[in-house]
Amino acid sequence: MISTDILIIGAGPTGLFAVFEAGLLKLKCHIIDALPQPGGQLAELYPKKPIYDIPGYPEVLAGDLVDNLMEQIKPFEPGFTLGEKAKDIEKQDDGSFIVTTDEGTKHHTKIIAIAGGLGSFEPRKPPIDNIANFEKNGVEYMVKDPEKFRDKSVVIAGGGDSALDWSIFLADVASEVTLIHRRNEFRGALESVDRVKELKDMGKIKLITPAEVVGLGGETKLDSITVRKNNNPEEDFKLETDYFIPLFGLSPKLGPIADWGLEIEKNAIKVDNTLDYQTNIPGIYAIGDVNIYPGKLKLILCGFHEATLMCQSAYQKIHPDKRYVMKYTTVGGVTGFDGSKKEAPKAVVKSID
Amino acid sequence: MISTDILIIGAGPTGLFAVFEAGLLKLKCHIIDALPQPGGQLAELYPKKPIYDIPGYPEVLAGDLVDNLMEQIKPFEPGFTLGEKAKDIEKQDDGSFIVTTDEGTKHHTKIIAIAGGLGSFEPRKPPIDNIANFEKNGVEYMVKDPEKFRDKSVVIAGGGDSALDWSIFLADVASEVTLIHRRNEFRGALESVDRVKELKDMGKIKLITPAEVVGLGGETKLDSITVRKNNNPEEDFKLETDYFIPLFGLSPKLGPIADWGLEIEKNAIKVDNTLDYQTNIPGIYAIGDVNIYPGKLKLILCGFHEATLMCQSAYQKIHPDKRYVMKYTTVGGVTGFDGSKKEAPKAVVKSID
Repeated sequence: MISTDILIIGAGPTGLFAVFEAGLLKLKCHIIDALPQPGGQLAELYPKKPIYDIPGYPEVLAGDLVDNLMEQIKPFEPGFTLGEKAKDIEKQDDGSFIVTTDEGTKHHTKIIAIAGGLGSFEPRKPPIDNIANFEKNGVEYMVKDPEKFRDKSVVIAGGGDSALDWSIFLADVASEVTLIHRRNEFRGALESVDRVKELKDMGKIKLITPAEVVGLGGETKLDSITVRKNNNPEEDFKLETDYFIPLFGLSPKLGPIADWGLEIEKNAIKVDNTLDYQTNIPGIYAIGDVNIYPGKLKLILCGFHEATLMCQSAYQKIHPDKRYVMKYTTVGGVTGFDGSKKEAPKAVVKSID
Repeated sequence: MISTDILIIGAGPTGLFAVFEAGLLKLKCHIIDALPQPGGQLAELYPKKPIYDIPGYPEVLAGDLVDNLMEQIKPFEPGFTLGEKAKDIEKQDDGSFIVTTDEGTKHHTKIIAIAGGLGSFEPRKPPIDNIANFEKNGVEYMVKDPEKFRDKSVVIAGGGDSALDWSIFLADVASEVTLIHRRNEFRGALESVDRVKELKDMGKIKLITPAEVVGLGGETKLDSITVRKNNNPEEDFKLETDYFIPLFGLSPKLGPIADWGLEIEKNAIKVDNTLDYQTNIPGIYAIGDVNIYPGKLKLILCGFHEATLMCQSAYQKIHPDKRYVMKYTTVGGVTGFDGSKKEAPKAVVKSID
């Protein structure tokens, strides 16, 4: 069982920054996220788009902000359970919690900080009757580990950035990549569209448009798909493949957390904003876009503030007898759990002769 | 009279970022600060020191953070009244305010946001009887405009970074720079101490230590000082000079704002943190280190959040009939008052043949 001081649910910018503020208080964090990589929406939905309202950054690419946050929290060695969803919670007699993911990973924690953003991102699934039979047996809704597809044949469906970008990436990994889209037009970054065309011309990506995958075949494991061209059943044909990856976008859902007994309002978790962003369940906090309070703004910079106040409150719960005296990082530096130390150069005291 | 939507008192990081958030709401800001340059403590006290807890910056020099904030707010064309202190306030019948500085500059504003940090920085003055007679007549406690000292003789007193750095700077501007310190040892950045030694060896800075300035002479204007060496009155001597600049540090004081009728607690201004960081006087907000509420942390990142919520509330006060629908900068871009436009590159819709 994984054990930690603060279990953070959601690896978006708010969750990541919470690791830093907790680390300054010598509290250890572990993060669960349904996506296969940290960064939340910023990494999954718009890594190459600029954000203009991060204080002190006239402009920063979302992906770079995630990289910088990962660098900032590195000294505090956060643990990660990625590609899994927080599902069940059991309150222990001592006030701590055990949180189990949909894949059965168990986490024991003193404090829970839900930094779930708009919710965990659930893939939009294509309406194919027997698709559930092949989930994890040839059908994947996101690419967690590209190596899984090495030297395999892969069919990707979709017409947006994810479909384009993974087709490009897997063209160098899989033995065969086929990209299927119901329209002739793709919608994405110009360079991605152009790159797919190049790879198609080089024979490294096979393109079928306008077309849809309408059937899946195989015994226990997927071995073929049925493709319908031009929306015309008479043009249906079978295509052998090891994997089918429909990338039709992600839609955020609060998910199993909605059943934890938390007060919910407008699909968000109500918190006490007068002090520490704690929910109606003592020891469970909600920070960032997932929470709601009077005047709430769903901005990354607000999540940073909420994470910081949450950590102070968590510290007092974990150490009821200690009084923490805040030290500015400029004055006290940052001492990592890994033994690293960052600090301002000290002034010298020196005579001039 | 200067006229604005939001008058911000204090040009530290919180005050500067408020300009950005107000700008997104198309509200115009003007900033008053007692210091001669924007940036507050960051620019005045520790521009070359690193800060480690700005979210998304594993490390940033305080001076660079100020530069980045100035760059970020540039599209929203803030006005500045620098080197003056907000002194008197008059509430107008329509709910607006007129704020007058200690130098008589008048500002008419709909909203006031006090972002005064620890207070306005008051210079620590040396205990010389008649020093008040020479203030602005040869005695200066901070360097507002270095050009004032061009081809003049200047005596600087002090042993810290300010005394070292201004001695170095003015060595190229003034006709003569004399640095006087009561100890032989200086306390500051190593490179500054070394540079002063170099300039001394080159004859560009005259150094007198251990010594103190104990007297000032002149009719209406300063023309000489009395220097006491080795704490021994028998070694007193006179030195002719155009200017005497004692740099003995700055000490923050809430100042005249303390008399505006605001609720004060622990030398800070009490605010309503449940919504918008408004004070007991409607239309006057307090954001950043200057305010106090339960759980308050005097952190720059908290000031950013407070500034943002304050701007939303100010917007509603200024436009009671409009409902502002927040647009993410990544989606809507940033349109400056100067006509500039920053926005994310749009996705293309393009077919691949």
